[in-house]
Amino acid sequence: MNPVLAFALLEMAMENFKQFLFALSAAVTVGFVSIIFVLRWVFYFKEGLAWDGGLAEFNWHPVLIVTGFIFMQGIVSAIIVYRLPWTWKCSKLMMKFIHAGLNILAFIFAAISLVAVFDFHNSQNIPNMYSLHSWVGLAAVILYSLQLVLGVCIYLVPITPTYLRAAFMPLHIYSGLFIFTSVIATALMGITEKLIFGLKNPSYKDSPPEATFVNVLGVLIVIFGGIILWIATRPSWKRPSEQVLRSPPTNGGGSVGIKVSQQTDPIDPKGNGDTRRRSGKLEDSGQIN
Amino acid sequence: MNPVLAFALLEMAMENFKQFLFALSAAVTVGFVSIIFVLRWVFYFKEGLAWDGGLAEFNWHPVLIVTGFIFMQGIVSAIIVYRLPWTWKCSKLMMKFIHAGLNILAFIFAAISLVAVFDFHNSQNIPNMYSLHSWVGLAAVILYSLQLVLGVCIYLVPITPTYLRAAFMPLHIYSGLFIFTSVIATALMGITEKLIFGLKNPSYKDSPPEATFVNVLGVLIVIFGGIILWIATRPSWKRPSEQVLRSPPTNGGGSVGIKVSQQTDPIDPKGNGDTRRRSGKLEDSGQIN
Repeated sequence: MNPVLAFALLEMAMENFKQFLFALSAAVTVGFVSIIFVLRWVFYFKEGLAWDGGLAEFNWHPVLIVTGFIFMQGIVSAIIVYRLPWTWKCSKLMMKFIHAGLNILAFIFAAISLVAVFDFHNSQNIPNMYSLHSWVGLAAVILYSLQLVLGVCIYLVPITPTYLRAAFMPLHIYSGLFIFTSVIATALMGITEKLIFGLKNPSYKDSPPEATFVNVLGVLIVIFGGIILWIATRPSWKRPSEQVLRSPPTNGGGSVGIKVSQQTDPIDPKGNGDTRRRSGKLEDSGQIN
Repeated sequence: MNPVLAFALLEMAMENFKQFLFALSAAVTVGFVSIIFVLRWVFYFKEGLAWDGGLAEFNWHPVLIVTGFIFMQGIVSAIIVYRLPWTWKCSKLMMKFIHAGLNILAFIFAAISLVAVFDFHNSQNIPNMYSLHSWVGLAAVILYSLQLVLGVCIYLVPITPTYLRAAFMPLHIYSGLFIFTSVIATALMGITEKLIFGLKNPSYKDSPPEATFVNVLGVLIVIFGGIILWIATRPSWKRPSEQVLRSPPTNGGGSVGIKVSQQTDPIDPKGNGDTRRRSGKLEDSGQIN
């Protein structure tokens, strides 16, 4: 193993690995429980899943949103994938392909879930796009597709110049977290709508078991989002840069972190620049090259 | 004027001031328009404001939440106040008092808005605390009060040791942004509930003018939250540390930013530490001392 990689992993292991693993396990656990909750909601309290223009077709909407647009976007793909230390052995390009591929998969889940709900509305003569839920949700899906297209063009097309990649990175990371948060807010509105429309005698106000159960699902989604945003904004859980992972150490005294910023920051290629400007960078939780 | 302050202001002015001012103006504008929207909703479409146990008492709930818990928490007080360059001449302690005071004011707004809705529910025999909106909203208010008490104890009680202030700062900043985001998500659920329950013949589904108008209010709140989170996570818009603002420059070549992190970082008092660990710090957008 590359000695610098070994050193980076050891440093990570000593300082942060347990904390990171605890947060990741918590996110995976809460995310899995959310998926179990949405499946139990659909199969135990509701009509199950089908593609028949009825309520069972609508049910694909919450199932695909929770599994794809929330769980997959949050954990498997978008936000956390660069932070898994056991992937630091993989090349950056490979990780970028995984990041892009899983985001595209999450987008497909979201797209199918929209088809399900439009199809259901049309066959039941319910208007489309009247609610705040639908407005914010569609905006999130459109921004997500824009984020995907721009991300692929800027970070996967090899001819894109480095200064453009550097300039766009703060916006790319901010947009990712903003879209993820908006999706969760939209899901909470969707749960609210569905419990009001779907529960009659007893209604939502009377707190039947389904209402309480699905409220808990909403709380789980909020907790899941909170853990993901915590992980995504911890600077010490970042993937070290490609250079650090590949090149041999040039001095024994400096830490990995100093090398990262001195050797690879395209905004400040001399590595002697304004630490204050970099410290606190939310956008610095990804790397540009 | 202290030459370092002058230099800091000049650097800020040259690099970031226009961008900061643009973002701040956008946030203030969108926030003000949101307040106008909620007032027009209440006075033009609904029953106005009163304290009579009826719908006009309920209306205090959205008005106080949008003005106090969203606008004031977002702009005036909590999140942005340290980032206004024209306040950098004020002492840090003074700014901490303003920060705490305005947050307490926002909390009072939120508390009165809860009293209004509980009072309305009780006089109309509507159950309390049955909805996801109420669960997440009450959790946000409880977390906010906890954040206030802990914030005052840790950052305003003079005997609290510096290492505790440093250790708690990442959680303090993360919690502030998480609570702010949760309040916005809760407001969106509240709008959804109120439009479903409040609109009959035509109903929400039929998109009467009130429905479209209040959907726009919801979108404005999302945009407001997005701008505030953008401002709050820009590292270069941070208040420089007290030392930089007061002490004369010790060398001509270093930038203000280097001084900030080298002179004042209690996590790394020698100023030679792990840049990688600091870069990307969301939590570093506040200062500890």
